[in-house]
Amino acid sequence: MRIFKEIQSIQNWCKEQKVQGRKIGLVPTMGYLHEGHLELVREARKHCDIVVVSIFVNPTQFGVGEDFEVYPRDFQRDSSLLEREQVDAIFAPTAGEMYLPDFSSWVEVTGEITAKLCGASRPGHFRGVTTVCTKLFNICLPDLAFFGQKDAQQAMVLEKMVRDLNFPLQIIRVPIVREADGLAMSSRNVYLDAEDRKQALVLNQALEQAEKAIRDGERDAGRIKQLLQEIIGSSPRAEIDYAEIYDAYDLADIQQIDRKVLMALAVKFGKTRLIDNRLVEV
Amino acid sequence: MRIFKEIQSIQNWCKEQKVQGRKIGLVPTMGYLHEGHLELVREARKHCDIVVVSIFVNPTQFGVGEDFEVYPRDFQRDSSLLEREQVDAIFAPTAGEMYLPDFSSWVEVTGEITAKLCGASRPGHFRGVTTVCTKLFNICLPDLAFFGQKDAQQAMVLEKMVRDLNFPLQIIRVPIVREADGLAMSSRNVYLDAEDRKQALVLNQALEQAEKAIRDGERDAGRIKQLLQEIIGSSPRAEIDYAEIYDAYDLADIQQIDRKVLMALAVKFGKTRLIDNRLVEV
Repeated sequence: MRIFKEIQSIQNWCKEQKVQGRKIGLVPTMGYLHEGHLELVREARKHCDIVVVSIFVNPTQFGVGEDFEVYPRDFQRDSSLLEREQVDAIFAPTAGEMYLPDFSSWVEVTGEITAKLCGASRPGHFRGVTTVCTKLFNICLPDLAFFGQKDAQQAMVLEKMVRDLNFPLQIIRVPIVREADGLAMSSRNVYLDAEDRKQALVLNQALEQAEKAIRDGERDAGRIKQLLQEIIGSSPRAEIDYAEIYDAYDLADIQQIDRKVLMALAVKFGKTRLIDNRLVEV
Repeated sequence: MRIFKEIQSIQNWCKEQKVQGRKIGLVPTMGYLHEGHLELVREARKHCDIVVVSIFVNPTQFGVGEDFEVYPRDFQRDSSLLEREQVDAIFAPTAGEMYLPDFSSWVEVTGEITAKLCGASRPGHFRGVTTVCTKLFNICLPDLAFFGQKDAQQAMVLEKMVRDLNFPLQIIRVPIVREADGLAMSSRNVYLDAEDRKQALVLNQALEQAEKAIRDGERDAGRIKQLLQEIIGSSPRAEIDYAEIYDAYDLADIQQIDRKVLMALAVKFGKTRLIDNRLVEV
């Protein structure tokens, strides 16, 4: 397994792979890997000749007062995990390597798709995500890029960016991986104390019950939103950032559940903000 | 020579070329080709195995009230000229092919480099240029992309975009091609009536005399700017949009001419806006 720190060297290496006709899979991560990330890697391993995992805690996607400085990092552990998954290369640049002092070029997806949900709660977040992914795509030249369904809006935004700007690659979404008790895996789960960890189960429970209500015939989006809020509200420690139901393709508002919908949650437990979601097609 | 109208088909074709180890040169144009464009093509022919010329009058780089609708177009003539230059492929998409109805992704270089000169006169122009060039780069997968020094600020902005976003390609600037009497070649020269055509020579004359003044020892940027304005002002039909001298790398303001500088002009003759420029290194 190769470990690259410099843009130029991995870009040259990836160019060589392409000339040899090899299919490159990229798994962009911020490190502190869990089973969710490893599922992305395994999916990439299945479909590609070369698997590249990037580990980069990207400063431009964190807002003021967010957890950039304290975001958990453990490169040694990450690289052993990736070696075990037979990854071909890790790309782990510094922030200074990725953003030169006079950096000033941005990629932005505009419209409802970035204005709602995490786009509303975290101004500038998706601009940071689309910009860094543009850079990673240009550096690693993937044929396929793998993202978790856990960050549903991120996957939607990147799919739109790839479509609008004609990146020569395909985004592959990989299903959410959950702990045995249903909590969606996240590097941020490490922040939770024992009581928050217990109460955080309410996210998946709310999504499950809301899906069941839809399956049982409920078609009123407003009532599903209310149900989500009630169930999450039953946890005394949960502070809802959003609990919404939108069109799963473009986050358009819906009244009636008559197409594929995304139920999306962001809930704070103390300082820790967790997200979860579920797609339902009727 | 292949003619492609569809993104998917030329992107697939370019991918095949790359797998075969061929070096692709891209010459992005808005058509209505003149010797300046053909110089770009010849330069590409010299350095690349495959030369792709795009012909696309890009609506997103024109402002309200600009000449998008009347911009000259002549595909038959353009394609014969390119065939003669042994171009391998033309990419000539429609606006609808390039911009789907829900298009909403933009690439923007921010800062002085896009705020000054044409960035000030034509708000949104460079956002349109960087967005369409991102698309063309992603579609045609060039190793080298050729741009004219005539659009000096455009070349600077694209070089910055490529550097900041790590596009796997190099921008090659090709010197300005001039008519025998010194007028810089431009598709927009066709708009000029006989009298404007004569008076438009003042642009190159101003640049020549300003360069001579620098070579003769003038180091005060303000005085050079004044000289440019005086010479252009001597033409009764010329209406100055800008006549400036800046740092040639980033368009920073300068007082003293102690590095490589860009003298840049935009001047209207009636409804026709012409640009010209000259780099001077002391």
